[in-house]
Amino acid sequence: MSDRVYNFSAGPAMLPTPVMERIKNEFLDFQGLGASIVEISHRLPVFREILAATESLFRELTGLPENYKVLFMHGGAQMQFSAVPLNLMSRNSHIGSYFITGRWGTLAEKEARKYGNTEVLMDGKEAQYRQIPQFDSCRLDQESSYAHLTTNNTLYGTRWHTFPDTGNVPLVADATSDILSREMDYSLFGVVYAGLQKNLGTSGTGLVVIREDLLGHALPETPKLLDYALLEEHSSIPNTINVFAVYVMRLVLEWVKEQGGVAKMEKLAEQKSGLLYQVLDQSEFYSAVADSNDRSTMNVTFHLPQTELLEKFLTASDKEGLFALRGHAAVGGARASIYNAMPPEGVEALAQFMKEFERKHG
Amino acid sequence: MSDRVYNFSAGPAMLPTPVMERIKNEFLDFQGLGASIVEISHRLPVFREILAATESLFRELTGLPENYKVLFMHGGAQMQFSAVPLNLMSRNSHIGSYFITGRWGTLAEKEARKYGNTEVLMDGKEAQYRQIPQFDSCRLDQESSYAHLTTNNTLYGTRWHTFPDTGNVPLVADATSDILSREMDYSLFGVVYAGLQKNLGTSGTGLVVIREDLLGHALPETPKLLDYALLEEHSSIPNTINVFAVYVMRLVLEWVKEQGGVAKMEKLAEQKSGLLYQVLDQSEFYSAVADSNDRSTMNVTFHLPQTELLEKFLTASDKEGLFALRGHAAVGGARASIYNAMPPEGVEALAQFMKEFERKHG
Repeated sequence: MSDRVYNFSAGPAMLPTPVMERIKNEFLDFQGLGASIVEISHRLPVFREILAATESLFRELTGLPENYKVLFMHGGAQMQFSAVPLNLMSRNSHIGSYFITGRWGTLAEKEARKYGNTEVLMDGKEAQYRQIPQFDSCRLDQESSYAHLTTNNTLYGTRWHTFPDTGNVPLVADATSDILSREMDYSLFGVVYAGLQKNLGTSGTGLVVIREDLLGHALPETPKLLDYALLEEHSSIPNTINVFAVYVMRLVLEWVKEQGGVAKMEKLAEQKSGLLYQVLDQSEFYSAVADSNDRSTMNVTFHLPQTELLEKFLTASDKEGLFALRGHAAVGGARASIYNAMPPEGVEALAQFMKEFERKHG
Repeated sequence: MSDRVYNFSAGPAMLPTPVMERIKNEFLDFQGLGASIVEISHRLPVFREILAATESLFRELTGLPENYKVLFMHGGAQMQFSAVPLNLMSRNSHIGSYFITGRWGTLAEKEARKYGNTEVLMDGKEAQYRQIPQFDSCRLDQESSYAHLTTNNTLYGTRWHTFPDTGNVPLVADATSDILSREMDYSLFGVVYAGLQKNLGTSGTGLVVIREDLLGHALPETPKLLDYALLEEHSSIPNTINVFAVYVMRLVLEWVKEQGGVAKMEKLAEQKSGLLYQVLDQSEFYSAVADSNDRSTMNVTFHLPQTELLEKFLTASDKEGLFALRGHAAVGGARASIYNAMPPEGVEALAQFMKEFERKHG
């Protein structure tokens, strides 16, 4: 395993090495079946048990209240940009309200316009999304069908530390990039969704958690596989599910549990990100992208003084086995994505590398 | 590898063992990257090359004309039940015409009603879908937006041997269960789509082949990730794609090419299915589901004289390493799905088993 790099990819992201090893070891023959988990029907008991165990582990790890349903759906978070308005827009005033704190919120709001009216409650664009703007909850029309936010902004490295009070309007959260990295009170939300490819496994599939009273309001034009109520009715398998993704998610959840659960992940995330923010704060060489009050514990974003130095930084870090540190094209600079699977040693190695690079080039 | 069974699963289905071994061997470290193919960004050149190679191999294997685009989309065939009318219904009369030869056609037609009118050109229901009914092409209104069929019916074990002439109406084919098992003239079709989990790899993703003049007609309510033109514009990665599925598909296509291409797959499919149909035809014990003129080369379906014997058959075959022979609940009986990856030895073993079982219980 010594040739595995420390992988700072923003997503698809690194998975825990013990999970990867287990997938490898049982890939040709799943538990004596004589076939791989990816070669069997999703209707067989052996897969249905995996699906049920995955849901059950997720409930256990998050303390999800009983009146919430757990669904697996094709496509990642962006499929939910369509599914959320398709399923919720008809509930009330046909107005979807959006808190925009980065690129994904912008795209989500744009997509929702196909299915009703939208209202932008706030937009951090003016401050280049370096912070989560203040929000006056009086501004939210209580007739709004739902209010949507992105819990953590992968590109900019910001996050909501506390969530806004939306009264009776169901709060909908895209939690793709920080799910299971922090304790969350799910009862504050109507819907929480996430693509699986960061803290939950592999790409192509989304997880949707929905309060059960919000089911059954889909617009007539909703494609069947985007209809939350239909998914719930068929236990997420109205058609062939992404078997591999569910299987991997189950292993990831077992790993999280073994590590000590979400509280432990949160503590580790604070320590790991804290180490990198300390480097940034003590440096006159690097500059942090995110305002210190709104910093993410999952994506640490920063600039170097010049483009040339950035390229040198990326090449040199790559050589040291610190992989995929280039920032998103819309932001530039560097980004260290340190999801649950990133071991503290990886972050320590990066912090060390950053300090040495500054010493040489600062 | 001796503990791998002969896996007759209808889908997700068995994959070629050399492909499975390769996935396993490079799972922790893809080509010296120090990370798995499932742990890297879909935007990195290393993945973009896989995506391009997959398309290019598909084009080579099928002889796809240049004016056809190749797309990868979230969800399997059933996602296309929505996407087809969403993308094509507006083109002409807002009428989608359907040839119904089994369960999937029935579901496709039902879904299309959300987006326009539908017309059933024929329905094999009366004959319990044991045959592909005759079709008088005069019945098709040339103003129809498209005409849809299912090339091979997994549940019943029937297939279209030759495709109907639909004149100027684009013919749309769900080829999930026989793609790459037979030579097909793609220029006869407007759209051909397939879930990947039978002859193309693993579940969760669909392949869509579309004649380029059919792009750009999506209805306004089309979810962005179901819009063919948007997928084409973004080379199938407007958002995070199912990296694993594309990677596996590329390996499967390489394997098909090594075996001798689609013509060879077709010849093998005829030989393999021929062997099983011979057993059925020479038996007074087993009865074939499909009429002999319309038999599939991918799914061989048959009944046993009594339910008790069926259960005995399924238990005994399973013990012999002949896995997943139970027929679909809607049809009952037994089904041997023998996609490209099933080696002739597996079919020979099954034929032998069937003859012995008949000798004992007939």
